Amino acid sequence: MKKIRAAVVGYGNIGKYVVEALEAAADFEIAGIVRRASSVATAQESKYPVVSDLAELESVDVAILCTPSRLVEKSAEAALKLGISTVDSYDIHTGIADTRARLDVIARENNAAALISAGWDPGSDSVVRALLEVCAPQGITYTNFGPGMSMGHTVAVKAIEGVKAALSMTIPLGTGIHRRMVYIELEEGYDFDKVADAIKNDAYFVHDETHVTKVDSVDALLDMGHGVNMVRKGVSGKTQNQRFEFNMSIDNPGLTSQILVAGARAVLRQRPGAYTMIEIPLIDFLAGDKEQIIRRLV
Amino acid sequence: MKKIRAAVVGYGNIGKYVVEALEAAADFEIAGIVRRASSVATAQESKYPVVSDLAELESVDVAILCTPSRLVEKSAEAALKLGISTVDSYDIHTGIADTRARLDVIARENNAAALISAGWDPGSDSVVRALLEVCAPQGITYTNFGPGMSMGHTVAVKAIEGVKAALSMTIPLGTGIHRRMVYIELEEGYDFDKVADAIKNDAYFVHDETHVTKVDSVDALLDMGHGVNMVRKGVSGKTQNQRFEFNMSIDNPGLTSQILVAGARAVLRQRPGAYTMIEIPLIDFLAGDKEQIIRRLV
Repeated sequence: MKKIRAAVVGYGNIGKYVVEALEAAADFEIAGIVRRASSVATAQESKYPVVSDLAELESVDVAILCTPSRLVEKSAEAALKLGISTVDSYDIHTGIADTRARLDVIARENNAAALISAGWDPGSDSVVRALLEVCAPQGITYTNFGPGMSMGHTVAVKAIEGVKAALSMTIPLGTGIHRRMVYIELEEGYDFDKVADAIKNDAYFVHDETHVTKVDSVDALLDMGHGVNMVRKGVSGKTQNQRFEFNMSIDNPGLTSQILVAGARAVLRQRPGAYTMIEIPLIDFLAGDKEQIIRRLV
Repeated sequence: MKKIRAAVVGYGNIGKYVVEALEAAADFEIAGIVRRASSVATAQESKYPVVSDLAELESVDVAILCTPSRLVEKSAEAALKLGISTVDSYDIHTGIADTRARLDVIARENNAAALISAGWDPGSDSVVRALLEVCAPQGITYTNFGPGMSMGHTVAVKAIEGVKAALSMTIPLGTGIHRRMVYIELEEGYDFDKVADAIKNDAYFVHDETHVTKVDSVDALLDMGHGVNMVRKGVSGKTQNQRFEFNMSIDNPGLTSQILVAGARAVLRQRPGAYTMIEIPLIDFLAGDKEQIIRRLV
């Protein structure tokens, strides 16, 4: 059987895990890795071609975009214009619908498909949220995150004057309310209390219960584990008090990368256009014979 | 906006809840109810047309099949041959793939679509099982049922000589192992211990821990609540120990009927053919504007 040739675009934390997930998936082969020109020049010896432009790689079926979210759309556009389908884990919730609409036009023009926001939230959590509304259209879903590191909040802390290194942990308190546990190394000459106040008054933190702690080494606290607890109580038809719960405890880049690879498989099975995960049948994300999957899972 | 005209085929427990769920869904109207000829003759006054043949109802878009599983395929065939799409909650796991294959041919010939096994297991649980394999392709999923009444096991007990009335409850013990708590009313003149032994040696019970209790009234114990606990521990890419859990505590016919109605919406959005839930995008099951759904759930 012909394998799917995937390019890994971006070789940070997620890119490295995507290479692992591709190696673990029997239906894929790695066409190569696309990195910044400066990184290509200094790259260590690699099992796979390393280039600075996707167009340099041969017969790529799908590009797995592992660049930061704000660069994803540009990367997707470039790949789609080469007629290469894309998958990404773009995670800025407020930008998803518009990004999808713009990429939809470009994908159709180039006879390719784009799957956006295929990580775990947005991504697999979105699938669960949709399923729970199928089961109980009326009601409330709470998505509780953590315990785990928040990238966005950590970056926000690092931007505050006097902070040398930082980690912001998200702690779930239920009903979608979260505590922020912030750990910082202080720059010399700064007052801890003033820096802590600046953090608590930052837009990222001002509405949440926030605790700031000074530590000697932020690195010593780092752990890529994360969790989700989703709860829905709602109404099926006219039947009240239907209760649903989804929990996971996972390695964050490990799960994101796995879903990206499954998404790379799925996007190649779609007609031209741009999609989110809830717009694609789940069976398309799975390897193997369709009828066997139905026998095993349905 | 034109409403979807649904026929309810079969008016037992599920059929009654389906009428409720249709009344709660703003995008549907009820074309009528199809019952056995003998029931039509004696039917109480109804808000909706009651007929004995689906063909008697006007402009039906979709037939929601609420007949017992063993009659579902015949019902589906008849509806599809009228060019009417169908949805059912056929729940004989070993028959799903073959039933789907046979209905696929008939659906295509008649330019209609059939969604089969759209209840909760098979159904929404199948969707969760598929999602968990997307997230961690290697590993084990356990589906733990209950506490709740098992229809199949209850029917098996009722068939045993000396049993006047019966209820078999499924109790989850974890890792897919279940205890059977069987409650019976005894026919006069039978020995309880002998009947209990016959139950424990029945093919439905012989492999499970089974307890049989004699009660005065089985009716006094009946409760349509049910539950599921699904657990997967697996590998994402090369990342071990990824943990997932899905729980629900629900009214059984309430949830089944809600999913049937959502499935009736979804099946009309598919090309001709037969489908299971994992072959249809989740967004197709939801009412409302697609872009708004993406903004709200992704």
